[in-house]
Amino acid sequence: MSETVTRDQFTYWTEIEVRWGDMDAQGHVNNAVYFTYCEIARVKLLGELGARGRADGPHGPALVTTTCDFRKQVVYPARLDVGVCVEEVGRRSFRMIYGIFFHGTDELAAAASSVNAWVDYEAGRAVPVPDWLRADLDRYRGER
Amino acid sequence: MSETVTRDQFTYWTEIEVRWGDMDAQGHVNNAVYFTYCEIARVKLLGELGARGRADGPHGPALVTTTCDFRKQVVYPARLDVGVCVEEVGRRSFRMIYGIFFHGTDELAAAASSVNAWVDYEAGRAVPVPDWLRADLDRYRGER
Amino acid sequence: MSETVTRDQFTYWTEIEVRWGDMDAQGHVNNAVYFTYCEIARVKLLGELGARGRADGPHGPALVTTTCDFRKQVVYPARLDVGVCVEEVGRRSFRMIYGIFFHGTDELAAAASSVNAWVDYEAGRAVPVPDWLRADLDRYRGER
Amino acid sequence: MSETVTRDQFTYWTEIEVRWGDMDAQGHVNNAVYFTYCEIARVKLLGELGARGRADGPHGPALVTTTCDFRKQVVYPARLDVGVCVEEVGRRSFRMIYGIFFHGTDELAAAASSVNAWVDYEAGRAVPVPDWLRADLDRYRGER
Repeated sequence: MSETVTRDQFTYWTEIEVRWGDMDAQGHVNNAVYFTYCEIARVKLLGELGARGRADGPHGPALVTTTCDFRKQVVYPARLDVGVCVEEVGRRSFRMIYGIFFHGTDELAAAASSVNAWVDYEAGRAVPVPDWLRADLDRYRGER
Repeated sequence: MSETVTRDQFTYWTEIEVRWGDMDAQGHVNNAVYFTYCEIARVKLLGELGARGRADGPHGPALVTTTCDFRKQVVYPARLDVGVCVEEVGRRSFRMIYGIFFHGTDELAAAASSVNAWVDYEAGRAVPVPDWLRADLDRYRGER
Repeated sequence: MSETVTRDQFTYWTEIEVRWGDMDAQGHVNNAVYFTYCEIARVKLLGELGARGRADGPHGPALVTTTCDFRKQVVYPARLDVGVCVEEVGRRSFRMIYGIFFHGTDELAAAASSVNAWVDYEAGRAVPVPDWLRADLDRYRGER
Repeated sequence: MSETVTRDQFTYWTEIEVRWGDMDAQGHVNNAVYFTYCEIARVKLLGELGARGRADGPHGPALVTTTCDFRKQVVYPARLDVGVCVEEVGRRSFRMIYGIFFHGTDELAAAASSVNAWVDYEAGRAVPVPDWLRADLDRYRGER
């Protein structure tokens, strides 16, 4: 993920206010918290698509893998714009990418991605992405 | 990272007790917490090598990128063994890999990796990994 | 703190967006996170008063005690208004109270309080609240 | 809670390893994390008593109020002993107190308390503490 990441790649946006407690003893936002920032954006988008998770039905999304490239440290106080888009939809999973920008700027704090399986929670295994979701995910496609 | 990950690849081990609060509303350990588990292992190992971070000197490690593959969900109560090793040492950075196993078993909960730059905190840029650290990192080499 | 807590007691307000990850395995915001919500409000207010903490000078605030009464559970998605006021200013400490309301309503999710000492970080002990801060704190006085 | 808190008051103990990420930008364990430490001890004890929570039945514990007095800052690396006891059992709730000590010493890092209601999760209101739990809680009584 060393290539350029720009705002125009993303199709869904969330604004996040950095909390003082997001920082660690190094005095900047802790690495694990970037994944929480991505989760905020992902849960919001999937929630809008009616695909929120376990509580809502027998099938839903589950994280398979996630990566984050840290480009600039973030220090409180700060406000961030998290862009997300669906990069690829496979048979049983889909891939999302994320751009964490300093609010209102093109300055990238981090670039991230996730692969999310569509799972049967009861059976504990991936099942085909349903057609209704596939259509919805397509509306949020973006290219990296 | 779809290849096999086994305990014998790792050269440094930390035992972690899962906290009830590590779980999220899905009833399993939240994805961001796996990065905290890796951080626990990384900070311990780097601390033993005398390379702990900002407070200890003008140069130190900084996370550049990190990835996690989630293999099995973790539910409280659980105890984990986090294995770590140095996979590669470059000029200005080194790469570590992590295996998060259920305690005392070969059952893998997650496999992770990180690239850590060696940085001049003041200048905000990567500098060559010092020889003393290079030698120490070599002692924890492992192969994936 | 079983008495009534109402919005008109508070003199400083912060709006907080609940993050999905603030919830625990019970499916509601975890108890420890309420203290983070109070911290967000406290750090903002003290920051505006120029009293932010360790990094900013040899003297600053330190939490001595904190309490929270949980009145209504909070479930994602939710937006909260956190009200805060200075209830009392002593010689070496001051007491703040907090009301966590559901956004735009009089419905109280939690009522909290904290005693904050003014400390000499180097010496590790409380010192008199300086006059400049005392005057500033007075502007945010409220009554419970 | 300014009175003396000593190890002999507590009837149940948990050992906790401080995680590097428990620290905040002040370089010590964040105030909210002390409540997580108490939660670890409470969940363990209640789990042993078969009173774990929502997932296990229609009735269970819910936190009503919690307080913490911070006595000594905790800095990574550190290991803590968290002592807990049941101070009082009422009709619909019980009160627990906690002592967070530096491992293997009488040095107190924090003293805390909580009031826990016994609730009907469906109805969302407190119900009488059942006799079986009352007897179990009595076995962990301690005096402050």
